[in-house]
Amino acid sequence: MIQTGLTDLFNLRHPIVLAPMAGVAGGQLAAAVSNAGGLGLVGGGYGDAAWLRKELFSTRENTSRPWGVGLITWAVNQRVIDLVLSYQPDAVMLSFGDPRPYGAFVKAAGCRLICQVQDLNEARLAQQAGADLIVAQGTEAGGHGGTRATLPLVPAVVDAVAPTPVLAAGGIADGRGLAAALALGAHGALIGTRFYASTEAQGRPSAKQRIVAAHGNETLRTPVFDIVRGYGWPQGYYGRALHNAFVTRWSGREEELMQALPAERTAYHEAMGDGNFDTTVVWAGEAVDLIHSVEDAAALVERISLEAEARLRASAALLR
Amino acid sequence: MIQTGLTDLFNLRHPIVLAPMAGVAGGQLAAAVSNAGGLGLVGGGYGDAAWLRKELFSTRENTSRPWGVGLITWAVNQRVIDLVLSYQPDAVMLSFGDPRPYGAFVKAAGCRLICQVQDLNEARLAQQAGADLIVAQGTEAGGHGGTRATLPLVPAVVDAVAPTPVLAAGGIADGRGLAAALALGAHGALIGTRFYASTEAQGRPSAKQRIVAAHGNETLRTPVFDIVRGYGWPQGYYGRALHNAFVTRWSGREEELMQALPAERTAYHEAMGDGNFDTTVVWAGEAVDLIHSVEDAAALVERISLEAEARLRASAALLR
Repeated sequence: MIQTGLTDLFNLRHPIVLAPMAGVAGGQLAAAVSNAGGLGLVGGGYGDAAWLRKELFSTRENTSRPWGVGLITWAVNQRVIDLVLSYQPDAVMLSFGDPRPYGAFVKAAGCRLICQVQDLNEARLAQQAGADLIVAQGTEAGGHGGTRATLPLVPAVVDAVAPTPVLAAGGIADGRGLAAALALGAHGALIGTRFYASTEAQGRPSAKQRIVAAHGNETLRTPVFDIVRGYGWPQGYYGRALHNAFVTRWSGREEELMQALPAERTAYHEAMGDGNFDTTVVWAGEAVDLIHSVEDAAALVERISLEAEARLRASAALLR
Repeated sequence: MIQTGLTDLFNLRHPIVLAPMAGVAGGQLAAAVSNAGGLGLVGGGYGDAAWLRKELFSTRENTSRPWGVGLITWAVNQRVIDLVLSYQPDAVMLSFGDPRPYGAFVKAAGCRLICQVQDLNEARLAQQAGADLIVAQGTEAGGHGGTRATLPLVPAVVDAVAPTPVLAAGGIADGRGLAAALALGAHGALIGTRFYASTEAQGRPSAKQRIVAAHGNETLRTPVFDIVRGYGWPQGYYGRALHNAFVTRWSGREEELMQALPAERTAYHEAMGDGNFDTTVVWAGEAVDLIHSVEDAAALVERISLEAEARLRASAALLR
């Protein structure tokens, strides 16, 4: 067992948090991670009410352990926050945007506030919002994120927001990454892509197999999927995805893609229906190099934690 | 004391290697790091023979501990390798390019071969070259590098080249980064920017002060300094530098810079003479957030190592 500020805060058995991947981390995956002793966060994304009702209900039905919800801050509003809080999650995580308008509401509901940040300026905003936990997310993470890398970002955020506990996110897929996060001064790791390639994740098996097959050089941060899907992400946040034919075609030609939108958007939605991942996006981080099979979430939580314990022991054994 | 494959290989007291920063890591800095119990590498860069003779002589005069030299692989030739080996360094490090043409010569001279890599393909080439040590360098590093981030790259390289020992580079400026590197399975850290801001580093005090003052958001990878200086770097390797007025002016306008070269190159050389860092480059990595003063190299080696020891103990103490 590894005991940290994170495990103390939520009474967890493992310092592992499921990244709230929109459209991937549904109630089944969140409950599985929580039942395994981590903290499962449902990927509430842009705040679709029908999806949230279904998945939050499912999470609450399937676990009696602490769980939570993650939302894209700039995309949601008070109504979404209220809906989420009505399911009495133990944690709400806000990412990408100013969390200060919602912090007090989350905390007044007796819920812990987690804020994910991509640099020190955002870390200070998170602290002002009253964050109980701050996730420092590096650019190697899958999905949306910033430009700073995890290894130097985490200790800088730790210093900037002390004594607020910090988690590391981005590039962590095994116990070595978790042990490194703890060495950097983090209280645990938030893990995404590794759980995408899990049995319980939403999303097609063929998407999960692409993650298993991919190499770390085959991901990139790109705006092309946001453009074709019509999401108005604020400047500075691109999504990291697996390279595919759509990226090859449009990367660097974003203006032309915007001109071609009506037809391209239609084609994209058709490709979604077909499960055609040469066109549609598979969000994934650079840690795909460390992912070799689709596994049950509980097995992943257990193995990552055991491997981290072994690495902490092995590292300490280097001391003479 | 931390004992690893690195400290065993060179009989070091600390698992710390000075990054061979061209024009920054001269004989004085390399000797200081070696005398402090790390491994000092002179920044041989593009292989200027007169500079190398002076600095290698100086290193050898100033330390009786193991030391080495780093070179930019694509920029050097057999004559440079022979010159370097004639000073009987304990290690030669090759970065950026195919090391296989030189590996046998380095090893036949009784010298250890270190290869720095930016992805798994390069890691396999390094192994074929006979590398005794492979440095996995993340994109957060200062100076030239690739696109992959340190935290997920290091364990992937460890797996790909086992049992060859691996070092971590990029984003490491304190003992937390070193402890994290060890947790990832590396045998030590190669550290650059932190030693740029040291008393013994070559380079102007005003450049060192810029590193001390900078925030991690104020670095970027850019080709503009290579274009204006006229270095023909192979595709894929950009240098990470502090943002300045020259970057603001030319970033994204590289074609125009090439058109304006005669005048811009003259102006750049004048700015070099003036120590004008609004125009000329200060290479620096994202770990500038963790650098708060210019210090003696020996004090840095000692503190980073002691802090890493403390972090290893503290991390192991999380085990229940």
